[in-house]
Amino acid sequence: MNFRDQLLAAERANDSLLCVGLDPNPAQFPAGLRGNARRIFDFCRAIVDATHDLAIAFKPQIAYFAAHRAEDQLEQLISHIHAVAPGVPVILDAKRGDIGSTAEQYAREAFERYQADALTLSPYMGFDSLEPYMAYDGKGLILLCRTSNAGGADLQAQPLASGERVYEHLARLAEGAWNRGGQLGLVVGATFPAEIARVRALAPTLPLLVPGIGAQGGDAQAAVRAGWRAAGGRTVAPLAVSSSRAVLYASAGDDFAAAARDAALAARAQLNAARCTL
Amino acid sequence: MNFRDQLLAAERANDSLLCVGLDPNPAQFPAGLRGNARRIFDFCRAIVDATHDLAIAFKPQIAYFAAHRAEDQLEQLISHIHAVAPGVPVILDAKRGDIGSTAEQYAREAFERYQADALTLSPYMGFDSLEPYMAYDGKGLILLCRTSNAGGADLQAQPLASGERVYEHLARLAEGAWNRGGQLGLVVGATFPAEIARVRALAPTLPLLVPGIGAQGGDAQAAVRAGWRAAGGRTVAPLAVSSSRAVLYASAGDDFAAAARDAALAARAQLNAARCTL
Repeated sequence: MNFRDQLLAAERANDSLLCVGLDPNPAQFPAGLRGNARRIFDFCRAIVDATHDLAIAFKPQIAYFAAHRAEDQLEQLISHIHAVAPGVPVILDAKRGDIGSTAEQYAREAFERYQADALTLSPYMGFDSLEPYMAYDGKGLILLCRTSNAGGADLQAQPLASGERVYEHLARLAEGAWNRGGQLGLVVGATFPAEIARVRALAPTLPLLVPGIGAQGGDAQAAVRAGWRAAGGRTVAPLAVSSSRAVLYASAGDDFAAAARDAALAARAQLNAARCTL
Repeated sequence: MNFRDQLLAAERANDSLLCVGLDPNPAQFPAGLRGNARRIFDFCRAIVDATHDLAIAFKPQIAYFAAHRAEDQLEQLISHIHAVAPGVPVILDAKRGDIGSTAEQYAREAFERYQADALTLSPYMGFDSLEPYMAYDGKGLILLCRTSNAGGADLQAQPLASGERVYEHLARLAEGAWNRGGQLGLVVGATFPAEIARVRALAPTLPLLVPGIGAQGGDAQAAVRAGWRAAGGRTVAPLAVSSSRAVLYASAGDDFAAAARDAALAARAQLNAARCTL
């Protein structure tokens, strides 16, 4: 099953558009684990076990592991997700981008070492920097398009001579000429619902990964209204809204996993209430 | 000493514009080491020991380590470079790019875990995605500008409504408003000398890191003529031309380190012959 189909199946099975972001920062762990980088796996496992039936995807952010020499715990975590939630795809958030020979190594890292189902990529280096990942049939390749941070506008929102903005140009390429193996998706921040709608218009079938709700202040329901579509009882325009800190750190006490479940339930309900059927 | 000064000092000490790229692929190792990912450090150490007095910088590419679970060997390698060549800066080539809270983790990885002197970064997410790295005083932050691959043109060479191309817009920001701590540099591929000259005109003082000679076919001498300048006996526009495969795999035999030294000597001489003094 390719990544897009995995995402649609998980959406149905867990009735969810919520992607649980795994950005484990030991300084924010509950008291018993706080500051202990050797407990990153234990912390994340508790979150996964508490939310695996509520998520459309899990999205571990590799920097939080690499900063603490915890690559082995990231391998262990992804393996654990596949074991307890085999229907829920894992998006490795690494935003890689490099020339072909180096991209081959990054692809090997993501898909062979970590066994991710999808990987986030930076498009700045162009189509040939994406091709080596396409050699891994069915894996999802999710390109940064219009990111959730304020500075995202610095390059992405620049108007081109053609009349399009940089992120619009990219969305059109990703839906069209670049999507040779049907593997592409796009990252569009929840902080800019009008731009989600614009990207959805240019890329009507691509999965959109939408970070920026919770700590970053994006409007989750506006994101769903702008980017998710169903027709005839089936999702035709897939969307996964990612929340990290609001779920992971819902409580600083021993009840953090139960609190994470409550936060995920609330976020899932809020997202589902905004679904718009055509 | 900040990264730009380190680079200028290494240029003088080793009379060199050659950056030795460390992209260790076990499949290309000489016979005795071939295919053995546990010998990545040993292979790279031999290259470093053979070239440390010929280089303006070393540039390990992190993907080649991450693909093989060899992060520990990357730590060991950078530590070894600092020990045998304390005057030669280490540029960690990782092309990171993410929002602030994640960028803090990547900065910690590069500058605390790996003890790099500089890091390559993708500018696609804008200025605020660079700020967390600037908290590390004096570390070099080298932004992708116009990359050496053909697909680099897909976004970077798009003409903006302002009349500039995307990479020109970026070069201007990097020399000006974005360079608050004086830490920025730019990546410009050797495959496009006219665009190196254009970047140099827009960014007259920034260090340029120029990959793409050797295996990628760029013209090393044209790159130096386009991007390096001295005045009054001092380099005013620093440039480091990176060669990886042509040095690392100069011989597939047991003489690989001696062959790497010969290749580095030849590349250094070729680059020096092209220096243009105003």
